[in-house]
Amino acid sequence: MASSTKRAQLTKEERTCKLTPLKEAGWTLVEGRDAIYKEFIFTDFNQAFGFMTRVALKADKMDHHPEWFNVYNKVQITLSTHDVGGLSHDDVTLANFIESAAK
Amino acid sequence: MASSTKRAQLTKEERTCKLTPLKEAGWTLVEGRDAIYKEFIFTDFNQAFGFMTRVALKADKMDHHPEWFNVYNKVQITLSTHDVGGLSHDDVTLANFIESAAK
Repeated sequence: MASSTKRAQLTKEERTCKLTPLKEAGWTLVEGRDAIYKEFIFTDFNQAFGFMTRVALKADKMDHHPEWFNVYNKVQITLSTHDVGGLSHDDVTLANFIESAAK
Repeated sequence: MASSTKRAQLTKEERTCKLTPLKEAGWTLVEGRDAIYKEFIFTDFNQAFGFMTRVALKADKMDHHPEWFNVYNKVQITLSTHDVGGLSHDDVTLANFIESAAK
């Protein structure tokens, strides 16, 4: 089933189940494209880049990389899956990892 | 002499001496603010984030941090010094380190 492969776009049902908890955690849908976004604020650059490093290791292992901006203690992350032109299971997996890494 | 302290804004003469080599290396002045910008393209995410990690260690040691965006093999960096409202010696030092780290 194509919709269950990790690189497939999320189905309508999956969006409800998988994106709702992320929205409750502060992720928002990006206007004009099928992507999710969240800004994280840390104590300082050490904390922010430490977080980014954990996410980078996970992302590279998944071969699924974030679009992200950092300045000092702020990290802004956008997730989408280029291969499928929108949100996939990989984005959900990475967003959930990001949530755990940010705690 | 205030203009020789590292957090002071670059003087006109210093701009000529210090920024010219950086411009020749591909750095450009940002429109609408006193900052410099360059985009770096690497082979893959591993290379890009390895580079970012080297820059992060240097930046945190200097207590002078870049504004940067990354997606996969691309890293876009803007440097400016908030404390002085424009380009300072720290930006020149960090840009030169970035050049050496990107090689």
